Order: sequence, then C-alpha cells, then structure tokens
Amino acid sequence: MTQPEQILGILGGGQLGRMLALAAATLGIRCHVFAPESDSPAFDVAAFRTAARYTDAEALARFAASVDVVTYEFENVPTETLDILQQTAPDVPVRPGRRALSITQDRLLEKAFITDQGLTTAPFADISRPAALEAALQSIGTPAILKTRRFGYDGKGQIKIASAQEGKAAWDALERQPAILEGFVPFVREVSVLVARTANGQSATYDVCENSHRNHILARTVLPANLSPASEAFARDAATLLAEALDYVGLMAVEMFVTEQGGRQDLVINEIAPRVHNSGHWTIEGADTSQFLQHVRAVMDLPLGATLRRHKVEMENLLGQDMDRVPALLAEPGAHLHLYGKLEARPGRKMGHVTRLLAK
Amino acid sequence: MTQPEQILGILGGGQLGRMLALAAATLGIRCHVFAPESDSPAFDVAAFRTAARYTDAEALARFAASVDVVTYEFENVPTETLDILQQTAPDVPVRPGRRALSITQDRLLEKAFITDQGLTTAPFADISRPAALEAALQSIGTPAILKTRRFGYDGKGQIKIASAQEGKAAWDALERQPAILEGFVPFVREVSVLVARTANGQSATYDVCENSHRNHILARTVLPANLSPASEAFARDAATLLAEALDYVGLMAVEMFVTEQGGRQDLVINEIAPRVHNSGHWTIEGADTSQFLQHVRAVMDLPLGATLRRHKVEMENLLGQDMDRVPALLAEPGAHLHLYGKLEARPGRKMGHVTRLLAK
Repeated sequence: MTQPEQILGILGGGQLGRMLALAAATLGIRCHVFAPESDSPAFDVAAFRTAARYTDAEALARFAASVDVVTYEFENVPTETLDILQQTAPDVPVRPGRRALSITQDRLLEKAFITDQGLTTAPFADISRPAALEAALQSIGTPAILKTRRFGYDGKGQIKIASAQEGKAAWDALERQPAILEGFVPFVREVSVLVARTANGQSATYDVCENSHRNHILARTVLPANLSPASEAFARDAATLLAEALDYVGLMAVEMFVTEQGGRQDLVINEIAPRVHNSGHWTIEGADTSQFLQHVRAVMDLPLGATLRRHKVEMENLLGQDMDRVPALLAEPGAHLHLYGKLEARPGRKMGHVTRLLAK
Repeated sequence: MTQPEQILGILGGGQLGRMLALAAATLGIRCHVFAPESDSPAFDVAAFRTAARYTDAEALARFAASVDVVTYEFENVPTETLDILQQTAPDVPVRPGRRALSITQDRLLEKAFITDQGLTTAPFADISRPAALEAALQSIGTPAILKTRRFGYDGKGQIKIASAQEGKAAWDALERQPAILEGFVPFVREVSVLVARTANGQSATYDVCENSHRNHILARTVLPANLSPASEAFARDAATLLAEALDYVGLMAVEMFVTEQGGRQDLVINEIAPRVHNSGHWTIEGADTSQFLQHVRAVMDLPLGATLRRHKVEMENLLGQDMDRVPALLAEPGAHLHLYGKLEARPGRKMGHVTRLLAK
C-alpha cells in the first residue's frame, strides 16, 4: 500500500521531472527534486528541492537520506552520481537501475543489446578510429549517420553522411569522439511504444503511437499509429522483451522505424529511452494511466495501472517559437494545453504541449 | 495570454487548494499557498508557501505582494483577512469576490438571495430569538432543521427537529447562535451543478451530477444524474443565473434537491458553495476541463475550457476508515485513485477519492 509519508527522489528538474512530480502527487507521494538549475520547472511542484551539481557528494548524500526511492528524468545521469548514491545510501533503490542506464547511455552497447535480443536495428559499426569509419562506410554504404556513442538526444551529436567523401569531415565535426556509424533505414514512418515494468516482473504496454519530427525534435504524436495489427502486436511484444532483458523497473520508451517493402511491414528498433518520453505525453488525457503515473507506480512498487486508450489522440509539441499560439490554444475547445512554467522561451526549447482527444 | 511568471495566491491548504495548485501547474502558473497548518497538503505541490494565521497582517501583506490574484478553497475566510488584503494590496483581485462570500457565508442571506432570483429554496425563517423559533416551527412545521447562519459545512452546525417540542433543546444545542429554521424538503435525490464564470461574463456549466451522502458527508457522485432533460437544463440555467447575480468570478457549485410529485420533477436550491466542490472531483478525468483548472482559468482571466463529459462517471470519497481499501483500489484496472497526502487518517477525514469512467 502507498504510504503517504513516502518520498520519491527525482534527479533532473525539467518538464519530465515536473510531470512526474505532478503524477506522484495524485497518489499523495511527495517528491524531492534534485537539479543543478535554481529555476528548474520541477521545483515549483515538489515538496522538497535541492539545487546542486550532480557531482556534489554532500548534497547527494542528504538527498538520498531523505527519500525512499530515486528515479531520474534523463538518461545522461553521470556515473559518478550513481556511485555516490550507491555509496552513501546503498539501501535506497535507484530505478531504472544501472544496467538500463549503462546500456542506453551508449549507442553502441544499446544497438548490440537490441540485436542480441533477436530484434532488428539499423546496420551499425563501432567507429573508434578513422580507418574504422572508412571500412564501415564501405560495408554499410551511404547515406549513413555518424553519431557519438554517448550524450546524444534530439538530434544532438549526430551528422548525416551523404557520400563516403564526407566521412572525415563528419568525424572531425564530432571531435573524433567514440562514435557509431548507422546505416540509413528507408522508413515510411516512425513509431514508439511505452512499456512499464515493476520489480516483480509485471509489465504493461500502451498503444503504439506514430511520431513526426521537425529538426530532429518531436513535433507531433498521433494514435492510433498507421500499423497493421500484426506490427502493432510485434511492437508491443518487442518493447516488453527489451524491458525484461534489461530487468527494467519503471517506464521506458522504445522508438522504432516502420519499413514497407513488397506489401510487408517491418519494425526496426531505433533507440530505447530509459525514462518517461515526449512521445508519451498523450497518455495524460489519452490513457487510463499517464506514463508519469505509471512510472511512479512502477518505481514505488505499486501495481501498474490500466493503459486503455479510449479515443483517437494527437499531441503537438510547443517550442519557444510557438508561444504566440498560446492564446488561441487556451481558447480552443477541448484542447488540453500544458505549459511547463519555463520563464524564457528560446526557439527550439520545449515550452509545453497540447493534446486533443478526437472521436474514436 | 498566460504569463509563466504569473502567481496565483490560494488561501487554504487542504485537498481543494492542493488540487487547484496541481491544475494551475499544468498551465505553468505557480501558486503561493497561505494556510495556518504547517503540514497543509497543498504546501507539497506549491512553489511558495506561507504557514501563518489568517489574521496575521504582516504575513498576509507579504503574501498579497507576491501574487497576481488571490483565491480561496473554503468559504469561511474571515472578513478580517479580506480587509487586510484589501488594505495592503488593493490592486490584487480576490476572486470570487466579497459579495459572493458575504452572501454564501450566511445561510439566511443566501436563502434570501436565491429566492430573490425567483428560484425555490426550502421554506426558511430567521431565528434570532426563541419566540421566532416557536412561530417558525408552527408555520414551517416539522420535521425541520435548525442551522446556524454561519460556519456550517458537512452537516456541522445543524440539528434536525422532529417535533415542535424539540425546538428549545435544539436552539440550546446550537448555543443560541443566530440561526435559520429550514423546512424539510421531501426530496427523492440530491444533485449539484458546477458553473464557472469569468470577469467578462463568459460562463460554462457542467453536466448535473447526482450525489449521495453518509453522515452528512458526500459519499458518492454519479453522472449522468437521474433527471429529465427539462430538469437538467433548468438546473444548469439556475446555476448560471445565480453566478450572474453574484457577479461571480471563478467556479462554484450549486446543490439542489430533486422532488417528484404527480409525475412532476422540481428542483429546490439547497446551497451555493463559492469554490471548487467535492461533488466536482469527477471532472478531473470525466470532463474535458477539470473544475480545478476551470477555476484557475476563470480567476486568472483566461478563457473557460470545454466542459464536455465523454463517459458515465462515478466518484467515491475515501475517508479515514476507507484507507485499508487503498491496496485494492491501486490494483483495480481503470480506477483513478487520488490521495491527498494527509499523514493522519482519522475516521470521517477526507483522505482521497476514486473516480471510475464507465461505458457511455
């Protein structure tokens, strides 16, 4: 049973941490948000707040001592942070765990892990020296994408290579960091699946959603996805399989490409986000349990909630340049507007989103 | 347009203030909660918190200086509090305004106001001395209910009088406070209507809900109410009329009795709650805009949201004695459980609620 005195620690103070804290509050769970920026959006809705660097051992020790469980809103939590937490509060679980983080923080390990499960990814190669890149460009062909192994999101840390001649410049542009080369997948659409799993192995998936991106940033999610029933089932099964194999606790998103050739639909796993995900914002109004509440339930050892979707749904991201649309969205009947309370609206910055429920 | 830097002040830190703050957060609006108890449930989700008495002039002045609008979660805000706010921050609107509060804080003024609008209430009489009670018991008859004019809620401050002989004892039991005698309404069911209104006169009602009480505390709300289409329309129109006549800004609830005689359905207005209301909790999942978000929209000068209901809904209150049902409710598919984060579960204390969406 949920204890009202239970406290969830959240590493990261952005909109995902904020929506996690809002969801936790519906079950009477108080949150302690730990984030470096003093104006973190999640601070505004958290019972307890620590503004400190992720490597501040003293602040982390106090944080860990004050909470029952630690989770995070972003996958690039420094390993040092986890080490400090482990040392100072070995009894406080960090969920999802270290294995999920270490694999998903590294594009090479992640791709290898996915193919180890018998699932398909884009063709890929480990690029740790220029010679490897040349060879990989030959075997994988172009167009291809060179990506840093670590710290990439929203298109950061990646460069498209149109022809083999561009290889060296791309490698230089990424500052010769350890990278992988990924072959281009001729996809007809992009989809993602949310899956949640508890420590005792209960799991639940949501309906597959279809995503469109602009400038590598998610622009729009719609449900249902344009997928065959077989592909829909396959996508959900694949996500569950990956969660099991990671011994995952919490909610994660699996991004996939859909290819179609000769009337056949295939799914290629793109990446795993070990956290609540932008493509899951539709669940706040569109599913019986939001992805945020589901994550809270999973990491707090509560049973998972129902994932039923009752309507067609569309979710649209609002970036800095979209903020002049807010008055119209506030006046639009049935538009569920979410603003994250960020004080500065820079172009490309995720400021909010809007969800619409449409007739089934 | 909503400014992310806008701050809403909330007087009162209970579950209603908490759910108001959670709703405000979805629009990026930060809340400053002012409440006497240091463990107020609303503090846990508010960006700013003041724990001070409602008559602490200095604390109120600091509070008022920090917010753009003041609202409240309970109708028994002391007049002194409003006076202090008015004096120290005359430019900060308090919504709903003084007129709505002064009328609804006093059962006699409230009943007179309602009948002045051409609507029906229970027969009532002003009881300020024992002789008045005797006369009123004669004209109104028994059974009847003696109620203090002020500070009543959830059945507090009222006594049922079964026969005229019990009058004096009832009057003594209420400590001879100014009271009203209300005739008994032979109702077949109780309903309520939520209505929201903005400063520029836009208004919106929700579908009528049907309520059942246990020990004078709301136990269960279901929608749709068992009402004729004509009564449903009348109820919504009556609520709108009352909001207009109060020049109301915000959301309010109007409780009504339904009587049936000779195949005819009539509505008798019971009381007006100048705030978000327990019978409106169903709107969180059951309507396109929750009552909490609607109230925030109204008091922050934003357009009202859609009030469409898409499903049959039932909402059940959870009191202290119901907390052992929490594990089962957490595991019930599709049950939307809300817990208010109260640390002590006393019998009769409102600890949470659960909402279920049923097929339409």
